[in-house]
Amino acid sequence: MNVAIITIGNEILLGKTINTNMAYLGSQLATLGFNLELAKTIKDDPETIKKALQDTWGKFEVVITTGGLGPTEDDLTKATIADFFGCEIHFDEAVWNHVQSLFAKRDLPTPENNRCQAMVPDGFTALENARGTAPGLHYCKDGKHFFALQGVPVEMQYIFETHIVGILKHYYPKMMGITQRTLHTHGISESRLAELFFVKDLPADVSVAWLPQTGRVDMRFYGYYPEAVDIAINRALKSVGSYVWGVDNETPAQVLLQLLSKKSNTISVAESCTGGLVGKLLSDIPGSSNSFMGGVIAYHDEIKINVLNVSSETLFSQGAVSEQCATEMVAGIKALTKSNYALSLTGIAGPGGGTELKPIGSVHFGFAAKDFIWSKKQVFNGDRNSIRFKAAEYAILELIRHEQCRD
Amino acid sequence: MNVAIITIGNEILLGKTINTNMAYLGSQLATLGFNLELAKTIKDDPETIKKALQDTWGKFEVVITTGGLGPTEDDLTKATIADFFGCEIHFDEAVWNHVQSLFAKRDLPTPENNRCQAMVPDGFTALENARGTAPGLHYCKDGKHFFALQGVPVEMQYIFETHIVGILKHYYPKMMGITQRTLHTHGISESRLAELFFVKDLPADVSVAWLPQTGRVDMRFYGYYPEAVDIAINRALKSVGSYVWGVDNETPAQVLLQLLSKKSNTISVAESCTGGLVGKLLSDIPGSSNSFMGGVIAYHDEIKINVLNVSSETLFSQGAVSEQCATEMVAGIKALTKSNYALSLTGIAGPGGGTELKPIGSVHFGFAAKDFIWSKKQVFNGDRNSIRFKAAEYAILELIRHEQCRD
Repeated sequence: MNVAIITIGNEILLGKTINTNMAYLGSQLATLGFNLELAKTIKDDPETIKKALQDTWGKFEVVITTGGLGPTEDDLTKATIADFFGCEIHFDEAVWNHVQSLFAKRDLPTPENNRCQAMVPDGFTALENARGTAPGLHYCKDGKHFFALQGVPVEMQYIFETHIVGILKHYYPKMMGITQRTLHTHGISESRLAELFFVKDLPADVSVAWLPQTGRVDMRFYGYYPEAVDIAINRALKSVGSYVWGVDNETPAQVLLQLLSKKSNTISVAESCTGGLVGKLLSDIPGSSNSFMGGVIAYHDEIKINVLNVSSETLFSQGAVSEQCATEMVAGIKALTKSNYALSLTGIAGPGGGTELKPIGSVHFGFAAKDFIWSKKQVFNGDRNSIRFKAAEYAILELIRHEQCRD
Repeated sequence: MNVAIITIGNEILLGKTINTNMAYLGSQLATLGFNLELAKTIKDDPETIKKALQDTWGKFEVVITTGGLGPTEDDLTKATIADFFGCEIHFDEAVWNHVQSLFAKRDLPTPENNRCQAMVPDGFTALENARGTAPGLHYCKDGKHFFALQGVPVEMQYIFETHIVGILKHYYPKMMGITQRTLHTHGISESRLAELFFVKDLPADVSVAWLPQTGRVDMRFYGYYPEAVDIAINRALKSVGSYVWGVDNETPAQVLLQLLSKKSNTISVAESCTGGLVGKLLSDIPGSSNSFMGGVIAYHDEIKINVLNVSSETLFSQGAVSEQCATEMVAGIKALTKSNYALSLTGIAGPGGGTELKPIGSVHFGFAAKDFIWSKKQVFNGDRNSIRFKAAEYAILELIRHEQCRD
C-alpha cells in the first residue's frame, strides 16, 4: 500500500519552516503498515499543485497533501483541488457553524476571511477539526484515497488521529505494520559499531540503519516480523550492548530519571554554559518532579559565588571553566538542594571566549552520586547550539553510564 | 535558475529523522537567487534513486542529493550515481589520506569500512569535507550541475558553504537573490492581521505569507526588489505595527536582551514549570552574559522556599500555581541575584496535575522591572511541550512589550 505526500508551502522551499509534518506522517503510516514511497514539497501555486496531483493520483493507494488550508489569501489549494477532481465547490453550513463557534468561544466576531474555510468540494467529506477552523478533506474514488490536511502540525495531527487512522483501517483492514526497534549507543563511532556488529548476522527480512545523532549513534532495526526484529536486537546487544544506554523512544533524560526514581534518588543541576538546558531536558519528561528537584543557572560568576558557594579564589586562580569550579559547583548545588545526586557544567560555548588553553567547546563536568564526587572534561565540536546540546546530553549520559555500571 | 533537491533516506520517510537539510538548502539557495522548485524525499534504493535522477537531471539547472554517503553498508548511493551518469569509479588516494588523517587525529586505526568513502566516479570532483570522512561530489555537463552531499547536517553545511556557494557564483555570476523580510507579531490572530493589512496594498512583485508560529504570527514579505519589499514592510508597520515585536531573524530572547543591554540592565529568572527553558532561550544568544545573570530552577517546592524565599504559608494556602507564588518567586530571584529585572513562571504543563480551577496549561507569571513588580496569568493550549514553550516565549514577549512601551 503505497502512499505519496505532497507538502504545499513556499515557506518550506524557502527554508523558513522545517517540514515536521512529513516525519509525523511517515512514522504514523509505517506503524499502520503503509509504505511512504514519495514525499514531495512544492510551491503554493495552482499549476504546480495540479501537476503534483497528476503525477501521484491513481499511482498511489493514498495521496495526502498538507498545507494551504488557512484563512488568508495565499491559500488557493482548495479551489485547485476541486478543479483537479472536476468537482464544484459548495458552502457548508456545518463547517461554518464550527468556525463561528471557535471565534465565539474567544468572544470574537468571525472575520469574513474565514468564510472560505467553509467551502467544501462536492463529493468530498469535511473532516472536523477541533484544533482549528479549517476542516480536513477526504475524497475516495476507485478504491484510492485523497486527503487534504492542514499545514499547522497540531491541527494536521488531530485530523490524522481522529479521522484518517479510522478511515484507513476501515478500507484496509488487513494491513500489517512495520516493526521498528532502536538501540541508542554512546561513546562509540558509527564505523566502529559497524565493525563490531555484522549486517550479515541479521535475520532474513530485517534491515538495519545506522543513525549518527549529535554526539551519539543509533542503530535502527526494522522488518515485518516482530520476532525477527527482536532476534536482531538480541544479537546486536551481544556484540555492542556495553555501549547501549537505551532502546526505542527512550531519551537520555528519561532513562536517567527512571534509574533515579527506581531507587527514590533525587537530582539537582548547576548550569553555567548550558544556561538551563539540562533542566529543560529533564523537566521535558512528564513526572520528572519525582526525582528532579531543580537547580541553579549560574551563568554569571556572582551567582556561582553567592548561591553555589564557589570560592572566589578558585574563580580568580583557575577561572570559571576549570575542574575545580565544576567540582565546587556540584558540591554547592547538592548542599543547597539536599538532593543525593547532582551534576554541574561550566564551559565555553562560543562563538567568543576561546583561548589556546581553553578552546571553544571545552566543558568541565562535575558529578555527585551519594557521597562520591567526580569530574570529567570534554572538548566538543560544532557551533554554540550543538556544543551546548552535546554537553547537556553528555552530562546526562555519563551519569546514566555510572548508574548502569553499578547495577 | 531552478533547483531540485533529492533527499535520500528511509529514515526520513519512516519519520524517524526530520529533514532539516531541506530547510537549510532552501534558505541558502533563495539568498543566492536560486529557485528551489522541487524537493523530493525518496528511499535509499538504487532503482528509486535512478528514477529520481531521470526525472530531474536535465530539467533543472542544479540537482542536489543529500544522504547516502556514510561508511556503512546501507549506503549504495555513490555506485548508483556513477552508474546513472555512465561513469566508472576509481579509488582516490587524496580522499583516502584525508579519511586516514581524521582517524589518526583521534589515535584510531581507520576501519576498512571507510575505504568505500575514497571511491570517486570518473569526471566527478571530490569536495573536501573538514567535518567528516566522506567528500561531497560535483559533476557538471552541458551547463547543468549535479551535487551529491552528506546527510549529516554539519557536514552537508560545510560542503555547501565551503565549495558549492563558490561554484554557483562562478557559473552564475549574475544571479539576483530574493529579498525576504519578516515582521513578528504577538497578541493578534492570523485572520485579524489579514483584516488590518490588505494584501492589495502590496507593491507589485511583492508577496506576503502569513505564518502562524506557536503562540504568535509572522508576516513574511518577499520579492526581487529590496526597495519594494521595504515599502511593503513600512505599509504593514503602519497598519499592524503596534503588534510587532521584532523583524527578520530576531528572536524574542534576542530582542529582550538588546533592550536590556542598551540600558545596562540585568535579568534573572525563576522557573518552575518551564524547568530551565527560559534560561536556555536567553543563553542561546551569543553575548547573553552581558545582561543575563542566571536564575533558579525551582521545580520542587523546597527550592521555592529555601532558595527563593517563597513563604510556606503561600504554598499551603494558595498552592505553587498562584499569583502570590509567582510574585514571591520574582521578588526572591531579584533579591538573590541583585539583577534589576526578573521574571518568574509557575504553572501546570501536564499531562497530569490539572484541576477544574487550575486546568492544564494554567501559568502564572511574575515580572520585575526596577522597582515595579506585576503579574499575569494565561491558560495555554497544547501538549506539555507546547505549553512550556508558549509560556517561556510569552514571558519574554510580555517583558519586551513592557520595555517597548516605555521607550
